[in-house]
Amino acid sequence: MIQSISIVGAGKVATHLSKRLRASGLNIRQIYSRQLEDAQELAATLNAEGINQWKDLQFSELDLLIIAVNDQAIPEVAQILSTLLSHSTLVVHTSGSSPLSWLNALPRCGIFYPLQSFSPGREPDFQQIPICVEAPAQSDQNLLIELGQRISQKVQVTSEADRRSLHLAAVFVNNFVNHLYQIAAEILAERHLPFDLLLPLIQETAAKIQGHNPAEMQTGPALRGDRATIERHLDMLEDHPEWRELYGVFTALIRS
Amino acid sequence: MIQSISIVGAGKVATHLSKRLRASGLNIRQIYSRQLEDAQELAATLNAEGINQWKDLQFSELDLLIIAVNDQAIPEVAQILSTLLSHSTLVVHTSGSSPLSWLNALPRCGIFYPLQSFSPGREPDFQQIPICVEAPAQSDQNLLIELGQRISQKVQVTSEADRRSLHLAAVFVNNFVNHLYQIAAEILAERHLPFDLLLPLIQETAAKIQGHNPAEMQTGPALRGDRATIERHLDMLEDHPEWRELYGVFTALIRS
Repeated sequence: MIQSISIVGAGKVATHLSKRLRASGLNIRQIYSRQLEDAQELAATLNAEGINQWKDLQFSELDLLIIAVNDQAIPEVAQILSTLLSHSTLVVHTSGSSPLSWLNALPRCGIFYPLQSFSPGREPDFQQIPICVEAPAQSDQNLLIELGQRISQKVQVTSEADRRSLHLAAVFVNNFVNHLYQIAAEILAERHLPFDLLLPLIQETAAKIQGHNPAEMQTGPALRGDRATIERHLDMLEDHPEWRELYGVFTALIRS
Repeated sequence: MIQSISIVGAGKVATHLSKRLRASGLNIRQIYSRQLEDAQELAATLNAEGINQWKDLQFSELDLLIIAVNDQAIPEVAQILSTLLSHSTLVVHTSGSSPLSWLNALPRCGIFYPLQSFSPGREPDFQQIPICVEAPAQSDQNLLIELGQRISQKVQVTSEADRRSLHLAAVFVNNFVNHLYQIAAEILAERHLPFDLLLPLIQETAAKIQGHNPAEMQTGPALRGDRATIERHLDMLEDHPEWRELYGVFTALIRS
């Protein structure tokens, strides 16, 4: 059973995950960050030690080391750990799109990927967040499942291909959707209209797909084939060629 | 004050709006639909009369006639009404994208546009739905404001240009967002993963822009300039050129 955990990283994933793990009764031992202040600030909330020297990482009686850094930094961190690791500590990363093979040089490795977008100042409901776990060794996979179940009702064993598809799909429903919100905000701002007017529609759009296939819930001029409205909208977007292009691609996709 | 209302149309907007108006204590007198069954089915829930003959429309002591039909049908309905109207009844349409001028042949006209996407079987919280009203005559506009305030806390007097921008923005945050949900569902279906896994992320994405500019809430590989992940995603979309195109356009927009 995992009881003692250290974390590399002090960003959004590291912060939200470590707090939730600590709240579930686990011991968070060390937080490593290149910025000592960041490490210490997070560590202080966890009764942990903040460090910024790799040599200070302790592996004795440590059950799990979580790498929660930017995807691009994972290979370098793994390489450093492979030279430091004095025990066969289980090491996982939290990235949806990074391969497990980046941790190949470590004796025991795995994935612990929470499928959520974390923002400062927001406390997500971890119980509802899917946690995707994977490990080459069945015993390690079981440890990660057990750990996931401490904080979430939705632990899912995923293959690398599954996890990558989940991450790609997440980019569509999170990053791209958010950008559509941004475009809408800018369309309204040009007429000095508050973005707030769209919030009920945004909430309803997100709510009504619960228990429904999104395709069944589609409405609007593209679905109806309402060419007059579509033409008028394209005219309105004349000064924004990229938005116009998006409008055209979406309209074609929804009509097809 | 508006007390007695008839409605042309028995679709989603007509259904949701008439039920809400009735629930607020107003008298719904007649529902017209080309399909008598549709008219009578809706009318039965409103203690109203369902009709499918224009000549049966009664204008005596009617305060308001609401045209809630597909945008394309509004001009024809307005033309028919202009020949029938025996009193100077106020007539409004509920369309976000259709001009007020389509009702020019009528002595008193206006707009009563609820900024929401209505779906069968879902009861939206009307109190939060912005109602956009407009009328050439100030007295009619006041009547529509008063009517709107009976069912919503968010009545907004909008010019035609405002209303069109709101409708265009709504297409982005409703129809296009819903289509992104659909693409994500299909990406997951290809790996036999349930769409449910994305619901917490979808909810959080819609929730975290409350009180924030969407641009501030952006995350992900495009914003970080994480080229390795972007390239991998584009490779994964090789068999879906339109999704790949969307991915490219969004990534460029988010990075710029």
